[in-house]
Amino acid sequence: MSKVQRIVPRTLKGFRDFLPEVMIPRERLMGVAREVYRSYGFSPIDTPALEYLEVLTGKGGEESDKQMYRFTDHGGRLVGMRFDLTVPLARFAAQHVGQLGTPFKRYHIATVWRGENTQRGRYREFMQCDFDTIGTESVASDIETSLVIHDLLREIDKEFGTGEFTIRVSNRQVLSGLLERFSLAQQTTSILRSLDKLPKIGPEKVALEMATNTSGTQEQIEQILQLAQLPCDSQAILSELATLAGDNELANAGVQRLRELVAGMDAAGVPSHRIQIDPSIARGLDYYTGTIYETFLDDLPGIGSVCSGGRYDNLAEVYTKQHLPGIGASLGLDRLLAAIEEMGLSNKGTTPAEVLIVYFDPGHLHDYLRLATQLRRGGVRVEMFPEPKKLGQQLKYADRRGFPLALIAGQEEFDTGECQLKELATGQSTKVAMSISGGAIGKEVGENNPLVAAIREMLH
Amino acid sequence: MSKVQRIVPRTLKGFRDFLPEVMIPRERLMGVAREVYRSYGFSPIDTPALEYLEVLTGKGGEESDKQMYRFTDHGGRLVGMRFDLTVPLARFAAQHVGQLGTPFKRYHIATVWRGENTQRGRYREFMQCDFDTIGTESVASDIETSLVIHDLLREIDKEFGTGEFTIRVSNRQVLSGLLERFSLAQQTTSILRSLDKLPKIGPEKVALEMATNTSGTQEQIEQILQLAQLPCDSQAILSELATLAGDNELANAGVQRLRELVAGMDAAGVPSHRIQIDPSIARGLDYYTGTIYETFLDDLPGIGSVCSGGRYDNLAEVYTKQHLPGIGASLGLDRLLAAIEEMGLSNKGTTPAEVLIVYFDPGHLHDYLRLATQLRRGGVRVEMFPEPKKLGQQLKYADRRGFPLALIAGQEEFDTGECQLKELATGQSTKVAMSISGGAIGKEVGENNPLVAAIREMLH
Repeated sequence: MSKVQRIVPRTLKGFRDFLPEVMIPRERLMGVAREVYRSYGFSPIDTPALEYLEVLTGKGGEESDKQMYRFTDHGGRLVGMRFDLTVPLARFAAQHVGQLGTPFKRYHIATVWRGENTQRGRYREFMQCDFDTIGTESVASDIETSLVIHDLLREIDKEFGTGEFTIRVSNRQVLSGLLERFSLAQQTTSILRSLDKLPKIGPEKVALEMATNTSGTQEQIEQILQLAQLPCDSQAILSELATLAGDNELANAGVQRLRELVAGMDAAGVPSHRIQIDPSIARGLDYYTGTIYETFLDDLPGIGSVCSGGRYDNLAEVYTKQHLPGIGASLGLDRLLAAIEEMGLSNKGTTPAEVLIVYFDPGHLHDYLRLATQLRRGGVRVEMFPEPKKLGQQLKYADRRGFPLALIAGQEEFDTGECQLKELATGQSTKVAMSISGGAIGKEVGENNPLVAAIREMLH
Repeated sequence: MSKVQRIVPRTLKGFRDFLPEVMIPRERLMGVAREVYRSYGFSPIDTPALEYLEVLTGKGGEESDKQMYRFTDHGGRLVGMRFDLTVPLARFAAQHVGQLGTPFKRYHIATVWRGENTQRGRYREFMQCDFDTIGTESVASDIETSLVIHDLLREIDKEFGTGEFTIRVSNRQVLSGLLERFSLAQQTTSILRSLDKLPKIGPEKVALEMATNTSGTQEQIEQILQLAQLPCDSQAILSELATLAGDNELANAGVQRLRELVAGMDAAGVPSHRIQIDPSIARGLDYYTGTIYETFLDDLPGIGSVCSGGRYDNLAEVYTKQHLPGIGASLGLDRLLAAIEEMGLSNKGTTPAEVLIVYFDPGHLHDYLRLATQLRRGGVRVEMFPEPKKLGQQLKYADRRGFPLALIAGQEEFDTGECQLKELATGQSTKVAMSISGGAIGKEVGENNPLVAAIREMLH
């Protein structure tokens, strides 16, 4: 044996390994998202992790530029690692939309990288899960986007039990129009920035900040803040907003869109308590131009919005002269997984399999293989322990991994034709008939197999 | 409007965008692999795209080191982008196996990067799809690995129609033992390298190369080459191999393992024509130490092995003193997708949806939304066109995207309560009853819905 120079096995700061315990719910969550996106006709795409640096710089703001991983590649090109999926979508749309046509509906589930300060508990590598509709300004897309968000959260609840949720919607035009009416349009960014702090610092401090940083009068500031202190009922909010909008066209257009949005969601069967018009949400500052969405878990609002997005005017103007309006949102995978963890809903199992076949008697390897095949053909996920170790050791393994069931069969069981199914959680054993016929295993072996039926019943 | 400085939208050389047409079958293929891995109890993991450079260098050979994307990060660390999933697995296993325990079975589907020469048609970013069992030398794992390969190819055939396939198996110990017997063990690498060329340059040129590069006698070289010219029947091959092995322990151990592997696959119901013992496959040169696998599509053997792997002695010895033997294989996603494309099996559709609801009459937006909800609740994937454009334009869109069906309903259809379902491929329309009840849509709306049933029937 040659002497080995050992290297410490470790991950980079801000990066992490995903162990099975974390990766299993993560894959389930991605699976749910994929199914919902597909059910609305969104198509998957993927783009490279690396892009020409010039494609990425200046698109996500100063912070993104600073945090971007960048280097010179083998061919002397300046390259960067994508820091979000929106800039690559813009580049992609500019490049391919001529071929693909509009409306172009895509989803993209992929990893992005940002060299963030890890002191804030942030990771430098994380996954985004976006869907967007490009090339239409129709309100039907605004309605559909909120329906997708609704179905995402409903399906996630079904899968994990995350409970009820509220989609908060607003329209940037309402606030913009109001500020236009007050001749404060030039100060929109500053006002939005203050308004965004409302849930954190409260109305008085926000009002003070606005009075300091803008030319708004006391009365105007009060009216702006009133947007955030509206009643709960959608229809009542819409009439108050219409009053505040006065004769401003932009604000009225925004109110009208909100009205159509709420009516459309109602027509599509969304329970009204899951929708809340909230003109104080002001996501993304300059980025969004119309409808805006934020989504909160009713049992855990404190973790923040788990699905956010909105309408934007011109996605790809830095890459093409073609006007490409769009609307979309992003599901916060990591935040949802944190919520699932915090709510105690994550199954701690580290195996996707349902049954461990204990490899008990070395003389019956082929019979264990036959049993495993039978169960798999019957749709049961089954692992066979690879070595004929002691029963206790294998059951300990099954327990630690989180298998619901262990199938035990030794010489006695093969003689009587009945194996034991042990429920790991309770320790209870049940005898169930098995049939080990030699030779090739036909297609039909999984169907109507009493062992499969017994396992199915014990699993449910 | 501010003047915009435009940037050419383009991808880096050797990188590519995945458009829906390519990404849809890619996702289906990944989904099949995931399901098969899970059915055997392999758990998903993920590791960072970036690793400390020292973790990656020197592990994949000179070529990998040269091709690796590497740079200095914000914190002055030397980092590299992973070029495969095996080196990260070794690092991961060394770091976590104490916590996870053995046997540790994982799958990992993720992107890797290599700055390869693109002139050979290679990409610099591609996806790997690996599964491995770590921590056991049991033959049960050798059998299981071939069963997983078998089920992968069988399920891929079911999903895409790729047809029959052959898993070629060998054991490195057979050849190593034979060379040991001939006192040619020191020249193993050179001999393996020559033997690997057998399918390309034929036995005569290989013999000539061996005669030039090694100290093997004419008779020895002939015996080595005989390994590649054995009969087809497994039992006949096994006895010939036993004869060639003579009294060499290593070779006999290899033959014995092959015998147990073939018997185990038979017991698990794998048809014998899908297994072929082929001692000439010599994958990976020094890397593998026991069983080796290569898998070929019977209708397209020329594209090479679509699933390859084998047993290795000590996965993580550069990172830990713990002895971690393992076995695994990698599904060649890109090669399989190329095969599916070449065999004309890829559905050219660019939408995952099954039905396009034509947004025909602007006055019935809410009814279209209701219909869409009904169909989705019934498990039909449905896209609603977002704008009330002309019928012809929307049908052209449906056709180009590859929708099987378009649902058409205007004032007349809403009056009569019957919509039209148009099959895009044939242009044929069928009238089907629909029910648009106002108000909230209950859970039951998708079940026993005659419209859903009619669509299901037309889709199958």
